[in-house]
Amino acid sequence: MKPPVSVTITGAAGNIGYALVFRIAAGQMLGEDQPIILRLLEVPQALTALSGVAMELEDCAFPLLHDVILTSDPAIGFHNADYALLVGSKPRSKGMERQDLITENARIFAAQGKEINTHAARDVRVVVVGNPANTNALIAAANAPEINPQNFTAMTRLDHNRAKAQVATKTDHLVADVTRMTIWGNHSSTQYPDLSHCLVEGKPASELISKDWAIKHFIPTVQQRGAAIIEARGASSAASAADAAIDHMNNWVLGTSEGDWVSMAVPSDGSYGIEEGLIYSFPVTCKDGKYTIVKDLEIDDYSQAKMRETEQELIDERGMIADLL
Amino acid sequence: MKPPVSVTITGAAGNIGYALVFRIAAGQMLGEDQPIILRLLEVPQALTALSGVAMELEDCAFPLLHDVILTSDPAIGFHNADYALLVGSKPRSKGMERQDLITENARIFAAQGKEINTHAARDVRVVVVGNPANTNALIAAANAPEINPQNFTAMTRLDHNRAKAQVATKTDHLVADVTRMTIWGNHSSTQYPDLSHCLVEGKPASELISKDWAIKHFIPTVQQRGAAIIEARGASSAASAADAAIDHMNNWVLGTSEGDWVSMAVPSDGSYGIEEGLIYSFPVTCKDGKYTIVKDLEIDDYSQAKMRETEQELIDERGMIADLL
Repeated sequence: MKPPVSVTITGAAGNIGYALVFRIAAGQMLGEDQPIILRLLEVPQALTALSGVAMELEDCAFPLLHDVILTSDPAIGFHNADYALLVGSKPRSKGMERQDLITENARIFAAQGKEINTHAARDVRVVVVGNPANTNALIAAANAPEINPQNFTAMTRLDHNRAKAQVATKTDHLVADVTRMTIWGNHSSTQYPDLSHCLVEGKPASELISKDWAIKHFIPTVQQRGAAIIEARGASSAASAADAAIDHMNNWVLGTSEGDWVSMAVPSDGSYGIEEGLIYSFPVTCKDGKYTIVKDLEIDDYSQAKMRETEQELIDERGMIADLL
Repeated sequence: MKPPVSVTITGAAGNIGYALVFRIAAGQMLGEDQPIILRLLEVPQALTALSGVAMELEDCAFPLLHDVILTSDPAIGFHNADYALLVGSKPRSKGMERQDLITENARIFAAQGKEINTHAARDVRVVVVGNPANTNALIAAANAPEINPQNFTAMTRLDHNRAKAQVATKTDHLVADVTRMTIWGNHSSTQYPDLSHCLVEGKPASELISKDWAIKHFIPTVQQRGAAIIEARGASSAASAADAAIDHMNNWVLGTSEGDWVSMAVPSDGSYGIEEGLIYSFPVTCKDGKYTIVKDLEIDDYSQAKMRETEQELIDERGMIADLL
């Protein structure tokens, strides 16, 4: 048996956290041969609820779960963390301006970056789930100078999976038949779900799907899916967000399928003309624990404009929190 | 790839259902090579919420999930069901007497038994999670004369897992080191968690744990764990109950570990003097898709009395709903 690794989860008593921790403890993120120590970090007022989550984790008798640590102290929460899933964030409250949302979260993620810098393993892998995810990841990375910035990522996998599901339904295929989906840019309503390179059973999706459907139906459906789920469930996506976080980390660590790629928001290396350093969602392949941006895809004028638009939003967000970088 | 199987879940929009369906779709119950069709059955007023769950299931892009069917019609919900997890039940409301709880649920599970009898696959495997689980399973089986009664079971696995976790914590071992735990009887406060045969790293637990601790601490903790979790979380156990249902079905179908056993409430064959036909939790081993009650364990006087007490409760419950059998 491998030695256990530490997985830190912030906001672990929330709805996404509750959907996430049991599946991680069951081995779905890092594989069924990888023992885990869970470090669950919460704000002090959520620690009682968190203790209930920990009791349930205990009650599952997961063979891989070697320990569960509950804390509101980031020094304990991030201690030797090998993986960090930053789920907790300040949600947008009524009447709150976007600028306020971004700056309030920026303070939280700047502080977490510093704690990660001090306490986490030097090769910690970080995925930010809490919104605004890309900019939060940017701030955390900027405040963790001793950690490779490439180890800070943000999650666009939920959008990626949603996009695959839409194409599968539209073309009457299984979701496993849909490959090479791409989400570009920001995990926000400016994200660009791109079908240009997508394959359905190995054939270009464009042969099965009209550009008109893609523009009028597919893109807005993927962008607004979260709101549609709130409308139906009366609660925001939790299990599917948790599932996407598991997929994100699982592929990063254990690799992507041959011939396919996934979408991850990672520091831009300048590919596709996207400003270097921005945390931007690209198509990536993963192997041996590392991701690589898929290069040299052909980008048409429509895509180019969409990719610029979401890049501009990220530049604007960065401008709002420049003092924390 | 194997052909897909149908898994029916009742009460799928509830909290246990929400914790359950994603893990089943991810392959944790039947294995990662078994495609699945989910048939989610809910009361009409929960169908909108259920549609949100289905959207999230779609958004996870699970490769194994071939279809999701939402319905309030049992004829559709149980159509060709290979596996049925009966999670939905009427909860005890304020001021409700136990007798009323039992008879109200008896009507629900009598109706479901009839629908299973008419619509499900002839070798359907049923686990009842909704309380009072043992008696609900008894009623469902009695109303499904064309299905082998042995295919109707009730879940005591959550109690089993809770008991393992308590012993692991007490003896400072990993939960994987604890084997041969036994829960006898009813999934209720009369259940008897029995350490007599339990091993910790292959050694008798009784060498590490005093009888006094077992009686004064262990048994009441396991029996009252549900209430302790409600106290901490402000909500009842959902993820751990879902996990136990997955474990129950997983072991039934794919087998138990060599040298170990699990607890399942199954029709008594008269073993240990328990009245034949009662749905009573026994230690069982599973192989080739069948469970076998572990025979000839030595039972001391203390255990004997406890086993009779929980048997008597089941006989009393049966008496309350005799008209539906």
